[in-house]
Amino acid sequence: VRISSLPSDSADRGRYRHFMEKEIHEQPEAIATTLNAHLDGTRICPSLDPELLGRVRAIHILACGTSYHAGLVARYWIERLARVPVSVEIASEYRYREPAIPEDTLLIAISQSGETADTLAALERAEHAGYLSTLGICNVPESALTRQCENVLMTRAGLEIGVASTKAFTTQLTVLLLFAAALAKAREADPGMIRQVLEDLGQASQQAREVLAMDGEVQQVAEEIASKAHALFLGRGPEYPIAMEGALKLKEISYIHAEAYAAGELKHGPLALVDDTLPVIVPASSNPLLTKLISNLQEVRARGGMLYVFADRGVSLAPAPGIRMIRVPAPHSIISPIIQVLPLQFLAYHVGVLKGTDVDQPRNLAKSVTVE
Amino acid sequence: VRISSLPSDSADRGRYRHFMEKEIHEQPEAIATTLNAHLDGTRICPSLDPELLGRVRAIHILACGTSYHAGLVARYWIERLARVPVSVEIASEYRYREPAIPEDTLLIAISQSGETADTLAALERAEHAGYLSTLGICNVPESALTRQCENVLMTRAGLEIGVASTKAFTTQLTVLLLFAAALAKAREADPGMIRQVLEDLGQASQQAREVLAMDGEVQQVAEEIASKAHALFLGRGPEYPIAMEGALKLKEISYIHAEAYAAGELKHGPLALVDDTLPVIVPASSNPLLTKLISNLQEVRARGGMLYVFADRGVSLAPAPGIRMIRVPAPHSIISPIIQVLPLQFLAYHVGVLKGTDVDQPRNLAKSVTVE
Repeated sequence: VRISSLPSDSADRGRYRHFMEKEIHEQPEAIATTLNAHLDGTRICPSLDPELLGRVRAIHILACGTSYHAGLVARYWIERLARVPVSVEIASEYRYREPAIPEDTLLIAISQSGETADTLAALERAEHAGYLSTLGICNVPESALTRQCENVLMTRAGLEIGVASTKAFTTQLTVLLLFAAALAKAREADPGMIRQVLEDLGQASQQAREVLAMDGEVQQVAEEIASKAHALFLGRGPEYPIAMEGALKLKEISYIHAEAYAAGELKHGPLALVDDTLPVIVPASSNPLLTKLISNLQEVRARGGMLYVFADRGVSLAPAPGIRMIRVPAPHSIISPIIQVLPLQFLAYHVGVLKGTDVDQPRNLAKSVTVE
Repeated sequence: VRISSLPSDSADRGRYRHFMEKEIHEQPEAIATTLNAHLDGTRICPSLDPELLGRVRAIHILACGTSYHAGLVARYWIERLARVPVSVEIASEYRYREPAIPEDTLLIAISQSGETADTLAALERAEHAGYLSTLGICNVPESALTRQCENVLMTRAGLEIGVASTKAFTTQLTVLLLFAAALAKAREADPGMIRQVLEDLGQASQQAREVLAMDGEVQQVAEEIASKAHALFLGRGPEYPIAMEGALKLKEISYIHAEAYAAGELKHGPLALVDDTLPVIVPASSNPLLTKLISNLQEVRARGGMLYVFADRGVSLAPAPGIRMIRVPAPHSIISPIIQVLPLQFLAYHVGVLKGTDVDQPRNLAKSVTVE
């Protein structure tokens, strides 16, 4: 990671115990800064050529770890807003496939550091594969990724030191939603829909601030989770990658074996794991999927599993023994994934602190994975 | 599940303790029967219209659970042989997305029972979405899936009673590889390549028979795994979905929390879990990915993780403390995923038996999931 161009005080923990805690709290500002960087009046992502965007007929996204989860969320956004088919792939897997690439496919590579070896190598391989163009999404200026891509959208998260990525993730999501809106606009989608996306994005920073104020409540949940050996995270739709990210954070920071599942897959196997020792953690939005999600949750309850539901304002779930509802003070909108991940970051952080792990530098892991 | 048309003795466990054990052993015959059903001299999948296949420009595969894993393997095969881009999606997730569908996309739905509610509902939704055509892959004649699809390729696994699918999975793979070859042929791919695929498929039944003879060795491994609370399965390339299937089987039958990861993703999080209490189980083929896989495995060893490598004939891995090599008596070829899954099925089975679970009817699960 290059840090030379950043102010030296970014490496100061300030009043926080850990960089991870500090970086979680920096998200409202990081999101706002990132938004401002890519909005110029009514122009969305002005650094991208609208003519190029107009030609895009398919998108491949390559990334690793947390950035891969950002790509999975982006798939929902891009397909919904711009009606362009998206394929998201783990960079280390893509490198060894023989993928078939439709005409006029844009390749997007996502990496916080811009130095992730697998992503760079996948990008290098892709250069001769006949893509329309390449777009890098990255947090570190002058990194290898920014040099290798024909187009770049920078996240403005500032220096991220905690190994478990937080503000890099939410600023990646911010950039990806802006990109989806820019693509939709270039393809002449409904202007009202695009305006609504920008309006919702304009609320993101403030909503994030309000959600971060619920830290104390999440800490109570963390006290219950800290004694567990496992956890299951469930999600549906765009909350499924958020469940994946929540599980990854908990794994990284607390060494609890957390696994995420698409809620509908529960009955196809993982339900066998559910008993009264397994906490099940669910980011839930009041979107059209909610009824189905609730019916999945009832299966967990019926098997004695303890449920922790992080529900936005619109979710109505009757209180019942074994269900703990944690209210996320935000409405449902297209930006929900950006907001829903925040309490899960807190949860992993507090469980890590309670377990006494080295939160900023978890065992076996490096901040940027520059080997394959 | 309709069973009316099947001979009554299929529901007899014979000399086996469980239906699952019996069904594992029936795979060589089930694979051969399935192959014969879809080969007519040099014609591959003669029930499919070659002109329709010639028009296919993209493929979407929808499935749940084990069938989803078969779809993930098929993606490698179809893209490699026929150069057609494939997207594989969990049916319960697909239903609630707003997917963008490229022109001339074939929809493939996979379900053993043909009654999986989420897959049927996804198919119904897709009927008005502008697909070129639909293809069902199914084990039960006259099921809802066979009625709903314009084209059908039946697996010939015979009645499957164990809740954890085994012979349905390997016959799904057989049909999917045949389909990939038929599609490649319709698109005028290299005839030598297609001949080689058919030759390899012709070996599958015999190779499966030889691999099933290693049951005793797998049982020893099962004794070591049975005392564990967790396990990690790692794979690369087409062995990644096989690792997923191995983990799912172990979860279902033994209630051990097993999770699969693409080996390259290890450094991006799950490596934090690895210590000397976590067994890491790896199906390994001597394909071009092997060097990278071995370097991933060394990371596990360096952290004290116990490794169990199920390696085909071509894999050379120096013996070392903490690495247990289990030889799978088969060469590497395109059919490797069909062969590699067999010892993992055995492993789950024996761990279940050792733990005294109800192997054929694991807690909380149903054979065919006819509710959403």
